[in-house]
Amino acid sequence: MSVHTDRSAATVTVLGLGPMGRALAGAFLAAGLRTTVWNRTPGRDAELVARGAIAAASAEEAVAAAPLTVVCVVNYDASDAVLRRDAVATALKGRTVVNLSADTPGRARDTAEWAARHGIRYLDGAIMTPTPTIGTDDAVFLYSGPEELYREHRPALDALGGTHTHLGEDAGRAAAYDIALLDIFWTAMAGYAHALAVARAEGVTAGELAPFAQGIAAILPPLFTEFAADTDAGTYSGELNPITSAASTMAHIVHASEAHGIDASVMRVIEGQARRVIALGHGSDGFTRVAEVLDGHRGA
Amino acid sequence: MSVHTDRSAATVTVLGLGPMGRALAGAFLAAGLRTTVWNRTPGRDAELVARGAIAAASAEEAVAAAPLTVVCVVNYDASDAVLRRDAVATALKGRTVVNLSADTPGRARDTAEWAARHGIRYLDGAIMTPTPTIGTDDAVFLYSGPEELYREHRPALDALGGTHTHLGEDAGRAAAYDIALLDIFWTAMAGYAHALAVARAEGVTAGELAPFAQGIAAILPPLFTEFAADTDAGTYSGELNPITSAASTMAHIVHASEAHGIDASVMRVIEGQARRVIALGHGSDGFTRVAEVLDGHRGA
Repeated sequence: MSVHTDRSAATVTVLGLGPMGRALAGAFLAAGLRTTVWNRTPGRDAELVARGAIAAASAEEAVAAAPLTVVCVVNYDASDAVLRRDAVATALKGRTVVNLSADTPGRARDTAEWAARHGIRYLDGAIMTPTPTIGTDDAVFLYSGPEELYREHRPALDALGGTHTHLGEDAGRAAAYDIALLDIFWTAMAGYAHALAVARAEGVTAGELAPFAQGIAAILPPLFTEFAADTDAGTYSGELNPITSAASTMAHIVHASEAHGIDASVMRVIEGQARRVIALGHGSDGFTRVAEVLDGHRGA
Repeated sequence: MSVHTDRSAATVTVLGLGPMGRALAGAFLAAGLRTTVWNRTPGRDAELVARGAIAAASAEEAVAAAPLTVVCVVNYDASDAVLRRDAVATALKGRTVVNLSADTPGRARDTAEWAARHGIRYLDGAIMTPTPTIGTDDAVFLYSGPEELYREHRPALDALGGTHTHLGEDAGRAAAYDIALLDIFWTAMAGYAHALAVARAEGVTAGELAPFAQGIAAILPPLFTEFAADTDAGTYSGELNPITSAASTMAHIVHASEAHGIDASVMRVIEGQARRVIALGHGSDGFTRVAEVLDGHRGA
């Protein structure tokens, strides 16, 4: 019972076999793509080879094996070390690289320019969900660069599961979204870690706080939408929650934290930003006005 | 058609008629409670009186009108200014105060001690949801103090709608939860405001980012539960996301932000906390290990 589909005829190369790279290669294999793999440090490909992957002896041999190479390494210093060698650049000429490594928008644009100079077709991308989501409906991938390139390779990329969004032609755009979203994520996680420290000092276990913390997380999505509309319109409505009230709450958090000898420096910085908005005469505005004072070019 | 229920026979006093105090009084009125109101600055009670509230001429007159007084002012300096006067303390003797003002756990405990010294029955509380939720299923109220007092007044408090939770006998416990949850909330909001500033500098509008920001908010609840279990067990598993990887992401955020002249001081502090965990030899742990280093008494 041998059924040939378009996808099973496709071939792909994966460079970088850390946990995420292995998940990507595994999803390509599971979808029936002929998958070639390579990693700078050897010995990461055994399980993938057992599942049918082809082990390449070098990065240049790997990229020559398919029209599409997906790169997933720790950052762009690492992807430069793999891609920006003459033998690899020569082998990539006329082929497509989709770089799913994480770094800044500037590094993504720089890599797109390097690729253009070498006749390499280039899409930048970002993976917004953790390793276990790869190959499932929960995976989220963002891309930027030439839309026609995105359309051409979308059938192969669909093997990775989940949702795929092309954000625009500027190669830095996927990294810009990635940075902004990870900014939200890690700042929220820092707030959670701090809250757990304060709670513990007050005799409240993390397990006791967690259900209420979930309730706080649940009210964020509609507020994010509301504040986004305010921000784009420049209205910063503080009708329900003026920044003066937020600053007062922040001071309570700092005092309660420091009374237990717990470092409150993150909240001290946040309170300082709120106080700066108030000092500039915007005390009746909402907290998102802070986005204005953070930007040295806008100033408030 | 005059129907008397247990609740309609109940009487309550509300001190403090800011937006939240007015919402509380309005919910008591809507539920049929005989409601007396008072505010330090006059003129805030007109709409409530039109709906049937009784306007008291002084705080002592107000608290004498009912066995239960609910206080909702800006903080405990303000509630002290109202409650800690001889005439008011005398009028409150043998009656119950439920203080829903926000402040630190220490101030809540101090007020409970003051109340005990004056023969006043005292419950501390916190309102976790915004004004429009009061009287609806979405409202969330936390209480701490004597459980038997909570049980006695729960029928009247139920008029405020939503869910009511008694957290324990320690009067500071509701404020401790409040502080910890607001810590998560305002830190997350600060991350969002910063992300909006970075996104804008990259040509991404808040409206474009918002749907993805919602996706980030949606992954927080299960992570909060998972990390709470780790924290209580002291395991800090970093298997899927070691803190070294988080610190690398944080550095990208700082660089991308500062490249646009945007203040990255919050993320700089967070990255510093992560680097401190790594320097202490816990680089393969997860980010919530940060909760340990924040606490000067635990140290690592």
